[in-house]
Amino acid sequence: MLPFARITIIGLGLIGSSIARAVKSRAPSVRVTGHDANAQVREDARGMGFCDDVCDTAGASVIDADLVILCVPVGAMRKVAEDFADDLPAEAIVSDVGSSKQSVADALGAALPGAIIIPAHPVAGTEKSGPDAGFATLFEGRWCILTPPHNAPDDAVERLRIFWQSLGADVELMEAAHHDLVLAVTSHLPHLIAYTIVGTADDLEGVTQSEVIKYSAGGFRDFTRIAASDPVMWRDVFLANKDAVLEMLGRFSEDLTAMQRAIRYEKGDELEALFTRTRAIRRSILEQGQDVDEADFGRGG
Amino acid sequence: MLPFARITIIGLGLIGSSIARAVKSRAPSVRVTGHDANAQVREDARGMGFCDDVCDTAGASVIDADLVILCVPVGAMRKVAEDFADDLPAEAIVSDVGSSKQSVADALGAALPGAIIIPAHPVAGTEKSGPDAGFATLFEGRWCILTPPHNAPDDAVERLRIFWQSLGADVELMEAAHHDLVLAVTSHLPHLIAYTIVGTADDLEGVTQSEVIKYSAGGFRDFTRIAASDPVMWRDVFLANKDAVLEMLGRFSEDLTAMQRAIRYEKGDELEALFTRTRAIRRSILEQGQDVDEADFGRGG
Repeated sequence: MLPFARITIIGLGLIGSSIARAVKSRAPSVRVTGHDANAQVREDARGMGFCDDVCDTAGASVIDADLVILCVPVGAMRKVAEDFADDLPAEAIVSDVGSSKQSVADALGAALPGAIIIPAHPVAGTEKSGPDAGFATLFEGRWCILTPPHNAPDDAVERLRIFWQSLGADVELMEAAHHDLVLAVTSHLPHLIAYTIVGTADDLEGVTQSEVIKYSAGGFRDFTRIAASDPVMWRDVFLANKDAVLEMLGRFSEDLTAMQRAIRYEKGDELEALFTRTRAIRRSILEQGQDVDEADFGRGG
Repeated sequence: MLPFARITIIGLGLIGSSIARAVKSRAPSVRVTGHDANAQVREDARGMGFCDDVCDTAGASVIDADLVILCVPVGAMRKVAEDFADDLPAEAIVSDVGSSKQSVADALGAALPGAIIIPAHPVAGTEKSGPDAGFATLFEGRWCILTPPHNAPDDAVERLRIFWQSLGADVELMEAAHHDLVLAVTSHLPHLIAYTIVGTADDLEGVTQSEVIKYSAGGFRDFTRIAASDPVMWRDVFLANKDAVLEMLGRFSEDLTAMQRAIRYEKGDELEALFTRTRAIRRSILEQGQDVDEADFGRGG
């Protein structure tokens, strides 16, 4: 059984619609209410039926909720929270799914003084966007990080932990600032690099775009998947987690310069040493079930 | 029918063993002879049975071949060609599968004066290595680039084209130097970046390796797959295609610096504009069948 009876999801894209589907597939009697700022998304969501009800305003959607989850770009958190602040029940827990956590804690704290706020981040997703991209099993075997502020009630944290575990996730508690540092390297920097290299390839004059696409199976196509992720969501992540991203980017650039130098001066031993070391990390990821253990992600077979 | 009757494959790793398997599955009567410098690989290959015969020396393996394909790291091409030069039949076509083509043309030209040499590069592979990693369908729907020198006989080029088409590949002809520029961006630079970022993450002191692995589903794990590729093969590629890789790396670094600046000065419009543009490239890759059109490469479902 879920520890909530009336869940409201604001933002019905990939993550929001996946939560709704996951809840309804596991606990059909729990009422799921949805809202999205975009009228077309609301209409699509009504058609797909993964919510019991879709409200036209954020305020109406939270009116008797015991859990409200914000699934909007992190730059939109404050505005949407202000929109429903007057309608939020005092005992409701407010959470989110944003990829940066300190900025969200600040935004929700400012918009909802006195509310029970427990920011969260399920480390799961795909490159697809929109309500049709979601699916009920998205969180199974993935980590969900909670970053409760120090004054968060223990029982509220516990209920949110049970909620995410019920959706198949493993839950971890973390300081918001540490979350932002960890995710800068495991998620934000990889996305920034993927977006950048796809842009670099698009701008070349000596190589045609048609050639880039035809021969992308050599490695490039993997980067294009990540670089197909939602532009507004990612714009907001880089702005919201600016300091940690710049820190990690600085380290990466240093290391890349060292590789550049190793190639220029033909230091094959240095290259081979790094390329050998990185295999161990892949092995650990597979051992811990964080990726499929099939060649080429199984797409070759 | 294949346009060759006695094919020799030197180097029985992922690519070499895949060619052998592909030939035997399509044309069982064509004789496939193999050789590998590593005695353990020869023994494994004999056990797996994808060659009709595995020879202990390169010279013995080519003695009556009509096609010889070198599937060794590009830095090893010259040495292995010298090893069998005295045993090579005059009418045999010598080809390879290396990821850089100008350096291979030079190496084989020097080692085999007067031989019919047609370098080739099937743009296919996985992150796995060794004879057990190969499979017969690896080249289906992938491109194979031939870079025949200007003095290559037309009928020999045509036979090699038919050979690769018979294995399911689409064949393109290209100048070696242009190939090296195209692959620098579609394959070599992505690999260098993936190896580097995985190394960067491994070196952090504020984030533990355990955290990097646990939360890798946010994007990082994709890079670790590429960074698990064969270290010696890739060391050789960067040394062999040094100029083109450094050129592309310079452009990428410039673009990354521009992104860094956009984040530092919070230019959200610039970020969003790039992130929107890159989606179009992904769309083209899917439209042209160069990747699977499933969220998260299908591994989420």
